[in-house]
Amino acid sequence: MTITMYELAGADPDRVFSPFCWRIRLALAHKGLEYECLPWRYHDKDKIAFANWERVPVLVDNGTPVVDSWEIAKYLESQYPDRPSLFNGPRGLAGAAFIKSWTERAVHAHIIRAVLTDIFRHVHLADKAYFRESREKRFGQTLEEVAANPGENIEELNLGLAPMGDALRETEFLGGAAPDFSDYIVFAAFQWARAISEKKLLEPGQPVHAWRERMLDLFDGLARKAPGYPV
Amino acid sequence: MTITMYELAGADPDRVFSPFCWRIRLALAHKGLEYECLPWRYHDKDKIAFANWERVPVLVDNGTPVVDSWEIAKYLESQYPDRPSLFNGPRGLAGAAFIKSWTERAVHAHIIRAVLTDIFRHVHLADKAYFRESREKRFGQTLEEVAANPGENIEELNLGLAPMGDALRETEFLGGAAPDFSDYIVFAAFQWARAISEKKLLEPGQPVHAWRERMLDLFDGLARKAPGYPV
Repeated sequence: MTITMYELAGADPDRVFSPFCWRIRLALAHKGLEYECLPWRYHDKDKIAFANWERVPVLVDNGTPVVDSWEIAKYLESQYPDRPSLFNGPRGLAGAAFIKSWTERAVHAHIIRAVLTDIFRHVHLADKAYFRESREKRFGQTLEEVAANPGENIEELNLGLAPMGDALRETEFLGGAAPDFSDYIVFAAFQWARAISEKKLLEPGQPVHAWRERMLDLFDGLARKAPGYPV
Repeated sequence: MTITMYELAGADPDRVFSPFCWRIRLALAHKGLEYECLPWRYHDKDKIAFANWERVPVLVDNGTPVVDSWEIAKYLESQYPDRPSLFNGPRGLAGAAFIKSWTERAVHAHIIRAVLTDIFRHVHLADKAYFRESREKRFGQTLEEVAANPGENIEELNLGLAPMGDALRETEFLGGAAPDFSDYIVFAAFQWARAISEKKLLEPGQPVHAWRERMLDLFDGLARKAPGYPV
């Protein structure tokens, strides 16, 4: 059994910072599956052309390519049913689909504005022109204009996180007593920021801050030990 | 065993329209518990003073008062553990806490603006002055000003519902193959609107619309048969 995954890396190949790749890195740890990380940069389109896809993560399991983090998680769940469950049944699958959609709207949308120039500092030299051009087109502003008011973005992020805080007043993790894929989806966004930015997104004392600490400790500190900034 | 519940009613005592009371009406049906509805209006503060509370629902179970819809749901779950579960364990409890918080922000906040004058038309004559004064103070506008652009509110509602639609592409209900308290929390907001307003909030063909149809059919059409408008 051989699993490899193409993961977005910065100039430093160990600095993997895609929130979508982190979801799967944690899902593989949850399933107890060993895998080899293949650092990938935005200009490496040809390296994943075999999968008929242009973004990462791309997982290759015994020669079978699987693309898109959500599809990869469902693939791992069905392919490795005897390993710890990522969803714990249809209830958790529906919950994770909800959390995924909510995270991309209420969490990613604010974090990316706060850290956009920090990402730019860390991307590979050969990715810089592509990153600037594609993001400036997406936002209709320069990177520096988008990232000019990180305090406002962080405030909006924290307002948007209210449902997460309310859930974490009831249980330790979104998955209940133990984390599941819902937790990895939200945490991956914080790990993305932590990999490339020194900005403090959460204040100590909040339920979400305490939860992030628990998440950083999982799997023998997998996320905490990865290249990143103290938060 | 006797359960009674004070429920917010309009001029018509059968037209119960509080989203918080509908959560519990459905939770009681889910648990298969019979109960007596005691119609309550905003001016009936003295009727629930025994519970040291000023809002409904107020549930009285064999003489024990329980207040606040979230606390009532948790009470029913712990008091009637042999009945069908409202949360299906800690995972569902965390999920429901998340959905509750999200619903009040992303769903209630838009629906109330769209239907505010419709609520006013249906409240008891003795409640009208209180309702107008308290809501105009809360919004800093007249009822008519708040409800002047329902189309915009309905558009924002539908944008906000995106995570719900994404979840319902994976499973029939937020609870998975069968509804649980998460479904009742969101559905109760639509039932609130349906009880007092003819406005169409959802378009046919959407996953959330199809889900609402399934919810209206539950428990032998409990919600569909209640006084309200076709939607």
